[in-house]
Amino acid sequence: ADAEAGKAKAAVCAACHGQNGMATIPGYPNLAGQNEQYLKNALTAYKNKQRAGGQAVVMQGQAAALSDEDIANLAAYYASLPAGGGQ
Amino acid sequence: ADAEAGKAKAAVCAACHGQNGMATIPGYPNLAGQNEQYLKNALTAYKNKQRAGGQAVVMQGQAAALSDEDIANLAAYYASLPAGGGQ
Repeated sequence: ADAEAGKAKAAVCAACHGQNGMATIPGYPNLAGQNEQYLKNALTAYKNKQRAGGQAVVMQGQAAALSDEDIANLAAYYASLPAGGGQ
Repeated sequence: ADAEAGKAKAAVCAACHGQNGMATIPGYPNLAGQNEQYLKNALTAYKNKQRAGGQAVVMQGQAAALSDEDIANLAAYYASLPAGGGQ
């Protein structure tokens, strides 16, 4: 997976999940330093509409546009960010 | 919500999510410092079987045993832990 490509793809994610992977909205998860494999699982589940509840419909829409490679790259990028946003 | 009550309830969670909220298994999410409202949304969605894919079936089972108060307390507890596990 290519974290740099993930960073480029993450521009749209930052609106809710923060420039540093720390969510800007309480109902949304922080992604910085999250486990890479978990991030892949979660994005894939949203893409496959296997997650509902909460704000899941927002992520179903976002993930629908992502290829498996995009998902792997985004997971690598967010996993690489320091947990807590580098405080 | 009562983070201390959540801590007591979290003993079973630690097997996979770590004593300090940092997952011990790659496919599982870190919970330390996660947004409280997001944690409540996620646990509620697992309880309602609105999340599938990945290891969701494990969490469906765990969350089924939790009351809404348990969920609120667990969310408060994990949100209170330092992101990154206090490194």
